[in-house]
Amino acid sequence: MTYYSGTLENLIERLCGLPGIGPKSAQRIALYLLSLPRDEAVELAKSIVDVKDRVRFCATCFNISEGEVCGICSDERRDTSVICVVEEPRDVIAIERSGAFRGRYHVLGGAISPIDGVGPDELRFTELMARLRGGGVSEIVAATNPNAEGEATALYMAQLVRPLGIKVTRIASGLPVGGDLEYADEITLGRAMEGRQEL
Amino acid sequence: MTYYSGTLENLIERLCGLPGIGPKSAQRIALYLLSLPRDEAVELAKSIVDVKDRVRFCATCFNISEGEVCGICSDERRDTSVICVVEEPRDVIAIERSGAFRGRYHVLGGAISPIDGVGPDELRFTELMARLRGGGVSEIVAATNPNAEGEATALYMAQLVRPLGIKVTRIASGLPVGGDLEYADEITLGRAMEGRQEL
Repeated sequence: MTYYSGTLENLIERLCGLPGIGPKSAQRIALYLLSLPRDEAVELAKSIVDVKDRVRFCATCFNISEGEVCGICSDERRDTSVICVVEEPRDVIAIERSGAFRGRYHVLGGAISPIDGVGPDELRFTELMARLRGGGVSEIVAATNPNAEGEATALYMAQLVRPLGIKVTRIASGLPVGGDLEYADEITLGRAMEGRQEL
Repeated sequence: MTYYSGTLENLIERLCGLPGIGPKSAQRIALYLLSLPRDEAVELAKSIVDVKDRVRFCATCFNISEGEVCGICSDERRDTSVICVVEEPRDVIAIERSGAFRGRYHVLGGAISPIDGVGPDELRFTELMARLRGGGVSEIVAATNPNAEGEATALYMAQLVRPLGIKVTRIASGLPVGGDLEYADEITLGRAMEGRQEL
């Protein structure tokens, strides 16, 4: 039995399909949208369609972009000799926020995951290799996630890129800053130990 | 500094305004929407506007409705002599799901909360009194939330309704079914004790 009208039920179902939104949140959001002034609801609806219409992927690095080439790829001040390879556009944002990287990016579009049916051919390795063959790149930073899929992707990429004589590095694993040694899991602690550096 | 294009930033900001959605979830949802086929994004946008255009409040009980009168108010099989008074339309759904009530509803649109500037005049008490003066109602169930605002609203309503000779009852407070006595807070436990019934 549905307790809502078809229109509201339809919105709730669609909201349920969004990442991190369960049935309870979807219901709460739908009722909130119903309580909004019509023009605010229309603005939200419009901004969803706008994103689909105006935002696309950078032709070079596949980061999100409103133009043919993204702001980072067209920024002349950035180092073109280092490319940081990430899984998703949100990883670009995370690294940009850290302010610790001034090179360029390459967004693979995911990680190798046989269980999800994602092999290397589904990722943007061909495009990465084409960029590298263009020359001028001396280092690739593998900034895929520190989980099984991300590690596999980093290792695969290292094998692919090394024959070109380009250095491949991997971002460090270890204890999060501000974290507590006592609460760290043993794998992270092991990685932190292995990756120890002289002070 | 914004890391996203204006269009995407705009969508993220709007999503951030939704209940329960923080900046991280908003970013995740926006990027997910970007990855959807255009027609799916358009469908979501359309269903938001549809809800605003098609769904309104029932003229009798102020529950959400697609017609002039909601499905519950127009259901002839339901008991018209008992009205369950709730704060919000979502409370109607919650009670309907329990299957424990076969009367009709009245949605106040909130609870009395001086701290939020909500007094009795902001709630649908006038409309409730008009329904009751129409006759045929023998009991009002105060099903406002079991918190300070909900209790105050129930007490206010009891004072308002009693002069009409109509019985006002309050839903029971007590331990949640499946809960654990050990973990119950003392106020709930006190209420459970006060409300004990003979077996």
